Amino acid sequence: MHRTLVITLVLTLAAAAAYGQGQWEALPDTAPAPADNPTTAAKVELGKMLYFDPRLSSTGTVSCFSCHNVMEGGDDHMTTSAGVHGLKGGRNAPTVWNAAFHSVQFWDGRAPSLEEQAKGPPVNPIEMGMPNLDAVIDRVRHIPGYEPYFEKAFGAGDVVTMDNAAKAIAAYERTLITPGSAYDRYVKGDKKALTAQQVKGMETFAAAGCMSCHQGPAFNGPALPAGTGFFMKFPTYPDSVYTVKYKLADDPGRASATKDTADTGMWRVPTLRNLTYTAPYMHTGTVKTLPEAVRVMAATQLDKTLSDAEVADIVAFLESLTGPFPQQTMPHLPPTPGDLLE
Amino acid sequence: MHRTLVITLVLTLAAAAAYGQGQWEALPDTAPAPADNPTTAAKVELGKMLYFDPRLSSTGTVSCFSCHNVMEGGDDHMTTSAGVHGLKGGRNAPTVWNAAFHSVQFWDGRAPSLEEQAKGPPVNPIEMGMPNLDAVIDRVRHIPGYEPYFEKAFGAGDVVTMDNAAKAIAAYERTLITPGSAYDRYVKGDKKALTAQQVKGMETFAAAGCMSCHQGPAFNGPALPAGTGFFMKFPTYPDSVYTVKYKLADDPGRASATKDTADTGMWRVPTLRNLTYTAPYMHTGTVKTLPEAVRVMAATQLDKTLSDAEVADIVAFLESLTGPFPQQTMPHLPPTPGDLLE
Repeated sequence: MHRTLVITLVLTLAAAAAYGQGQWEALPDTAPAPADNPTTAAKVELGKMLYFDPRLSSTGTVSCFSCHNVMEGGDDHMTTSAGVHGLKGGRNAPTVWNAAFHSVQFWDGRAPSLEEQAKGPPVNPIEMGMPNLDAVIDRVRHIPGYEPYFEKAFGAGDVVTMDNAAKAIAAYERTLITPGSAYDRYVKGDKKALTAQQVKGMETFAAAGCMSCHQGPAFNGPALPAGTGFFMKFPTYPDSVYTVKYKLADDPGRASATKDTADTGMWRVPTLRNLTYTAPYMHTGTVKTLPEAVRVMAATQLDKTLSDAEVADIVAFLESLTGPFPQQTMPHLPPTPGDLLE
Repeated sequence: MHRTLVITLVLTLAAAAAYGQGQWEALPDTAPAPADNPTTAAKVELGKMLYFDPRLSSTGTVSCFSCHNVMEGGDDHMTTSAGVHGLKGGRNAPTVWNAAFHSVQFWDGRAPSLEEQAKGPPVNPIEMGMPNLDAVIDRVRHIPGYEPYFEKAFGAGDVVTMDNAAKAIAAYERTLITPGSAYDRYVKGDKKALTAQQVKGMETFAAAGCMSCHQGPAFNGPALPAGTGFFMKFPTYPDSVYTVKYKLADDPGRASATKDTADTGMWRVPTLRNLTYTAPYMHTGTVKTLPEAVRVMAATQLDKTLSDAEVADIVAFLESLTGPFPQQTMPHLPPTPGDLLE
């Protein structure tokens, strides 16, 4: 049996047992960082510049920001994203908000870290469309104003490298977290932070079994070592009307990354934070509203049909997981030589 | 003779005489605003949100920010801009920095105000691609979170209108100004603000005759009433090698807006501020470096060939017109209903 799957199942059963009693955790005020990339102000500053820089795409039009809009829900507002030349991707853009609390990245978990994730979209032909990572960092090197920022973040020497660019972007993304939501305040003791309906929804959410997957501070699964993903079969109960209606089983999921048929239909469990900002929903982007998303998940993952009141209560609870979004200053990007895009 | 042209010529001659003695003006600390749209903090906040919102384009991918990047030079870094579906425009994007100091907008001056300019790109089929302005404001209305910001800016009632959206964007753009450059500090009395070469370049710039057009605080012409443009024939001397090399005479210029052949080859005189950030140059975007741009202008507008030293001195002077760019906070956009882009 596939090793990841074994780990996943063992952990899931243990977690499901632990969460049977209901265990609520606030989001930490800082995101974990790997030992070889501690978060520093200089890296965050550089990373923010690179994150917003469309010059790193083949056409000069697409940046990380294009599909992960940190002025809004950290995603775009589309079924699937638009990359260079208007090409459309195959999956709904996951939010970058609190991505730092995922132990693996992408819907199929194919990147073990934010650093590795950052190297994906620039060379994806339907996202940023660069031929390879050397071409990406060549673009950065062609903009002389970037070098001092790399040196400030990584020291002197040959520091304008793709690895350092990815580290800087990851460092910036580790600041894109939203502790302090109404839910967090409630868990920390402010019992007035949630409405009566939200508290009822919280109880319904737990009682229905949602927390066998959506647990922990980010509601994306149990604490796992960085690089070890928490994956779940979706749809687990494929016989509901939703599977066909919303095309839920058309994509092989994690199997597209591992090429292991045992991973077919396995997906990283996404965070439930900031859902009020991230419609449309699911890896397909086919479910347009939050109440419908709750119904779909109950049917496909728990084989349950919730009442309208239960759905409304759960939605009210999920709304308590939104924000607050940190106020950010805009980066200032170095100027472009006139021959950059030749 | 065309009225605008008469005004232009009369004013040009008068201005050229006045500037023969060399007259240097610092950029004001605030931009002028029309009587019916005074700049307020609430309008600026709303305008910044709309400016950054790609949901106002047909594909949901292009915002004002896409081609007028206020994290950099207020333009893009391309010969001509890319709009929806990767379509390319016909002219180089003018910078939005200090656009508030232009008396008309667009290269051909076809908009008499920033308010009117803001209504252009959303319905341009190769820019933001919306079918009409009603469709644009319908998009805004479909995002419920916008209404409170319109009410804060414009009062209660039926205030979510295209006119108000354009007013808000214009109000935001009036904050996108860059007083306080080295040149401004020099003019205000700080004689150490410019290098010896920059001062020499300033003198060369005036002596060569550049200021017959590039005069005033923004180096875009004499003070004219809002809505009255300052246009100039470009190339005035079409026989240089540059006309063909850089395709300078292929576009009818203002005649494309007025349908008056007398306006063929007439262009609004652009600001010279922040040129170090706005390569490539000219309405064509075909001139890649600032030294070459200076050579082209000397040849085509003054029938002069400058020495390499003169070019270098003028470039050094022009570099003193860059920045400082105000630090801006990012706007926070209201969330998207899942059916917005249907």
